[in-house]
Amino acid sequence: MTDRIADFLRTRRPEGPCLVVDLDVVRDNFLAFRRAMPDTRVFYAVKANPAPEVLKALAELGSCFDCASVQEIEMALEAGATPDRISFGNTIKKERDVARAFALGINMFSVDCEAEVEKIARAAPGTRVFCRILCDGAGAEWPLSRKFGCEPEMAVDVLEHAHRVGLDAYGVSFHVGSQQGNTGAWDGALASAAKLFRELAERGVTLRMVNLGGGFPAKYLKDVPGVPSYGRAILDSVHRHFGNRLPETIIEPGRGMVGSAGVIKAEVVLISRKQAGDDVRWVYLDIGKFGGLAETMDEAIRYPIRTLRGDDETAPCIIAGPTCDSADVLYEKTPYALPLSLEIGDEVLIEGTGAYTTTYSAVAFNGFPPLKAYVI
Amino acid sequence: MTDRIADFLRTRRPEGPCLVVDLDVVRDNFLAFRRAMPDTRVFYAVKANPAPEVLKALAELGSCFDCASVQEIEMALEAGATPDRISFGNTIKKERDVARAFALGINMFSVDCEAEVEKIARAAPGTRVFCRILCDGAGAEWPLSRKFGCEPEMAVDVLEHAHRVGLDAYGVSFHVGSQQGNTGAWDGALASAAKLFRELAERGVTLRMVNLGGGFPAKYLKDVPGVPSYGRAILDSVHRHFGNRLPETIIEPGRGMVGSAGVIKAEVVLISRKQAGDDVRWVYLDIGKFGGLAETMDEAIRYPIRTLRGDDETAPCIIAGPTCDSADVLYEKTPYALPLSLEIGDEVLIEGTGAYTTTYSAVAFNGFPPLKAYVI
Repeated sequence: MTDRIADFLRTRRPEGPCLVVDLDVVRDNFLAFRRAMPDTRVFYAVKANPAPEVLKALAELGSCFDCASVQEIEMALEAGATPDRISFGNTIKKERDVARAFALGINMFSVDCEAEVEKIARAAPGTRVFCRILCDGAGAEWPLSRKFGCEPEMAVDVLEHAHRVGLDAYGVSFHVGSQQGNTGAWDGALASAAKLFRELAERGVTLRMVNLGGGFPAKYLKDVPGVPSYGRAILDSVHRHFGNRLPETIIEPGRGMVGSAGVIKAEVVLISRKQAGDDVRWVYLDIGKFGGLAETMDEAIRYPIRTLRGDDETAPCIIAGPTCDSADVLYEKTPYALPLSLEIGDEVLIEGTGAYTTTYSAVAFNGFPPLKAYVI
Repeated sequence: MTDRIADFLRTRRPEGPCLVVDLDVVRDNFLAFRRAMPDTRVFYAVKANPAPEVLKALAELGSCFDCASVQEIEMALEAGATPDRISFGNTIKKERDVARAFALGINMFSVDCEAEVEKIARAAPGTRVFCRILCDGAGAEWPLSRKFGCEPEMAVDVLEHAHRVGLDAYGVSFHVGSQQGNTGAWDGALASAAKLFRELAERGVTLRMVNLGGGFPAKYLKDVPGVPSYGRAILDSVHRHFGNRLPETIIEPGRGMVGSAGVIKAEVVLISRKQAGDDVRWVYLDIGKFGGLAETMDEAIRYPIRTLRGDDETAPCIIAGPTCDSADVLYEKTPYALPLSLEIGDEVLIEGTGAYTTTYSAVAFNGFPPLKAYVI
């Protein structure tokens, strides 16, 4: 929560649930990444929050952009980024979208198999590609599935193939898992990356870049290490595994860039019990899983929730959304302690919600409009 | 799949993933419910698919409407339903929304606690309320959480309270769980409902209505009983528990009304393996969890997926969506058998997708537009 957001809510009093994003926090986060890793280029993961104001603020500071689709590429260009500062970082692309990106000047693409290399060789000849490798994600609040990336042994073939068909085999990427709390998590993947660099060099292909991905955490209920700790640990690992032949490095923070910049204002719609004498209350808010809080799935991400009831005595609550969907329950396995004095109609503030909220919001589920956002 | 949908796709060739809904199937489904349960009023659960054409077709056939929000109420009115054919069936309502619904003429509200009764007594005085009770949902593909409803013992107090504050304590509702495969699942809840009727009668309150909820299945990969079987089993239970003093009954089919009426056309974006020699292929489509297939969550709902490769030899595939979200994997625990001849760019048809798809779709996640729909 920042003074600017508090002022905005107090003076504007927006109706209905909404997200308020403080651009000063976004700018501070960008500068913290740059300070912690001065020789690493920052590619903001647009999908985390593609609000035009956020993209423009970051473009002005010199950020690059990791885009998941042609639409995101167009938004980054519109915000003022030049094509050389944009990567098409989705390993799953229609060939006609690769062609559209190429026509827009994009020169860096992500791959994880030969079929994707073939598409890029046809639709964006001569461009740079990096191959995503699988890594285990231990230590992450939300370890990633095996959806993206291939085993490192296969990556050697994929990159050699890219080289053979006239692409620029540029480097390797990986992702250590979302909301990664272990600053040392990059070490194992960097060892794999360095091995890939050596194996490809033996085949006459010189890789130059390591994309360190995202995973930088936002502060939710639990404390997380600061950006400087991540910078130090990662750069140590890069030195350890690459020695004096340091590759170019890039990072793709999304959650770590905008998560802490946003606060959702919501309202208590109902407080009830399922039977007389129940200890645990059900607290229903006017926002839930389908209104922007999709990341409460499996209760992995526990947002700080503040009421205006100060230090009143608390008791455990199950927290749920307003829709007629039985799956729209935010926190039940580990209930939240909320004030006993909490009342229907009270405002609550859900902090750390600047990332992965607005765009996850459903179009019109149960007739409810998508999450409104104000960027200040 | 119907001939009309096949014709539409062949002649219109829409670009990008889309849902096509055949109104003839919706009408047939409505008439099947009416035939199977001629004395029961059908309240279509608007949230399942609120397309104006669907609402209009059902309104013309005489359907009533179960609405989750004021927006849905407005849509039902616009489709031609009169207010007496609309229920505000969400147990979680802002008091100002109750007032708006009352101003629109709505006279039937759902509750599951005294706090909600209070809101309705203030904002919609004198109207009918029914109390939702918890029931166990055994036999459902997707048993519901405890989010809605209260224990039957508490419902007695809630309804007596409604009566005391000047509301019309109208009846009881329950929901036997989504995609309920057991036609006998209503029996236990009907026993509870009948007991409630008796207990309230002893307190001088005469209930008149049982809302049997939804749960009627759509046909996905597994076969399901037909509507007549549900009708017979439910009416048997009503007679068994209520004897000759039969209550009014209503049902709220959503999935059972529109699920089978829709087909999603999608495209194979990528087919890959994670390492050389993997038996299981990853097949990435241009639609996933965030583009309308949210109900693949936990792989509970297994949609029939058809390719144009006929009877070619098949092998197991993991199926995933196109976004950069690692959770956007549709089927992995139990892979799908798809033709070995399947190729990037192939069209696939995802059947039984008329319910809970368009409105679940994310606004713009990863920049991808929400699911388009054509109602024919």
